[in-house]
Amino acid sequence: GSSPVKKTACAEPSYGERAGRPGIHPVASRLLRLMEQKTTNLCVSADVIHAEELLEIAETLGPLMCVLKTHVDILQDFSPEVSGRLKELAEKHNFLIFEDRKFADIGNTVKHQYEGGLYQISSWAHIVNAHAVPGPGVVEGLQAVGQPLGRGCLLIGQMSSRGSLASTEYTQAVVKMADDHSDFVFGFISGSKISSNAGHIHMTPGVQMQRGGDGLGQQYSTPGEVIGTKGSDIIIVGRGIIGSADRLKAAEEYRRAGWEAYLNRLSALS
Amino acid sequence: GSSPVKKTACAEPSYGERAGRPGIHPVASRLLRLMEQKTTNLCVSADVIHAEELLEIAETLGPLMCVLKTHVDILQDFSPEVSGRLKELAEKHNFLIFEDRKFADIGNTVKHQYEGGLYQISSWAHIVNAHAVPGPGVVEGLQAVGQPLGRGCLLIGQMSSRGSLASTEYTQAVVKMADDHSDFVFGFISGSKISSNAGHIHMTPGVQMQRGGDGLGQQYSTPGEVIGTKGSDIIIVGRGIIGSADRLKAAEEYRRAGWEAYLNRLSALS
Repeated sequence: GSSPVKKTACAEPSYGERAGRPGIHPVASRLLRLMEQKTTNLCVSADVIHAEELLEIAETLGPLMCVLKTHVDILQDFSPEVSGRLKELAEKHNFLIFEDRKFADIGNTVKHQYEGGLYQISSWAHIVNAHAVPGPGVVEGLQAVGQPLGRGCLLIGQMSSRGSLASTEYTQAVVKMADDHSDFVFGFISGSKISSNAGHIHMTPGVQMQRGGDGLGQQYSTPGEVIGTKGSDIIIVGRGIIGSADRLKAAEEYRRAGWEAYLNRLSALS
Repeated sequence: GSSPVKKTACAEPSYGERAGRPGIHPVASRLLRLMEQKTTNLCVSADVIHAEELLEIAETLGPLMCVLKTHVDILQDFSPEVSGRLKELAEKHNFLIFEDRKFADIGNTVKHQYEGGLYQISSWAHIVNAHAVPGPGVVEGLQAVGQPLGRGCLLIGQMSSRGSLASTEYTQAVVKMADDHSDFVFGFISGSKISSNAGHIHMTPGVQMQRGGDGLGQQYSTPGEVIGTKGSDIIIVGRGIIGSADRLKAAEEYRRAGWEAYLNRLSALS
């Protein structure tokens, strides 16, 4: 059901409306706008070990996703040519690249890890993420590199894995850290909406059509739960698509499920 | 003062005594034994961006250190030849290699990050570390790769950076996670001794001869504080040595300061 959403005073703002809010982070604005344009809140997590396969996923599924999530450090054959081609595909299909590096060291170290080494992540990833456990220095180190390049950062507020130590107090401290660094941090990796700031984007991993787990602690939720019940903005789907015999068909199913959950949420609240 | 330590019932066990305890992790035993042999509790943190400089540090300071701590992902020119040469130098000078990767993802992801990619960390690093925030799956994923290779893991129990979210409850949960995975986890990165298990090794970063900070949240303690007052086992020294005009002289000063603090602690308790 994609009936037009009535805009009343108490309605939850749409992705597109949030994109235009004053003071919103440029990366958040660009992301919300392309989500509205492409009618997708699907982030594809492309955990493959060959660069050619990663690029094929970006080319084939690019039109269906708002974000491509990478773990560049599991590729057997990364080279600067690979990141160059990823950037081209992101332009062509209008998605953002999110390197799921989970930076988690002191500021001086993450600066080097973000900018340098073989991967030079800051040169091609629009979005990175960080754990807040080291304290604000981790954000400040990343920000020193990323802000001048127009990049943005997500903080990990909750994890989808069994027995996570991210307690309620921990999550609250993460939200505060985001508020304190709004020039660089524009949202969260979390299972649910943890900030009431409409400029903050929530992305949720561990999404499958069926609930369950993977035997190494991962726990799955469905698109309807994540977007509808939990109030998150973007579903991150990995094995549900990458492990499918027909990735394009699976990605379209997730895109539609995520988008319908979003439209239902808007309708319910308006 | 290196007067012989009296062995009384209430004495704190020496590194060498701990190395021989039944049930101790093989990596911990090997490490404690070489510390006793080489009279050093110094870990050098070699945060440089050129492989040649890293190898020169390993060659020159190898005799003075028990552990070389690396951030291989900040090297501009890593290649498998570099890790091969590091392994040779570790054999030659009898130290262990600790890749300070701070794994912090779900089990299925860290398996790939530890074993694969361009760095193939599990093939050359005796020791890695992990954040406990994802829950036990992070250890279980790493263990699936590292235990068959005879590797060991440290959990990050506390951080030296300002405003760290590792609360007392968090640290307690980390110690429990270590106890629950004693086939792979043999100690901690922490500012102080957080486990009473004599098989657990505590390594403390942020050590300088003078207290202070770095402007990105790092906070420094001295060797005497870390080993004497805080009860840690190994001092991790980075910029205090690497930033010195005479690295060999600086490393020898830290080695002596760390070792004397250890002998004083043994004497005080015997």
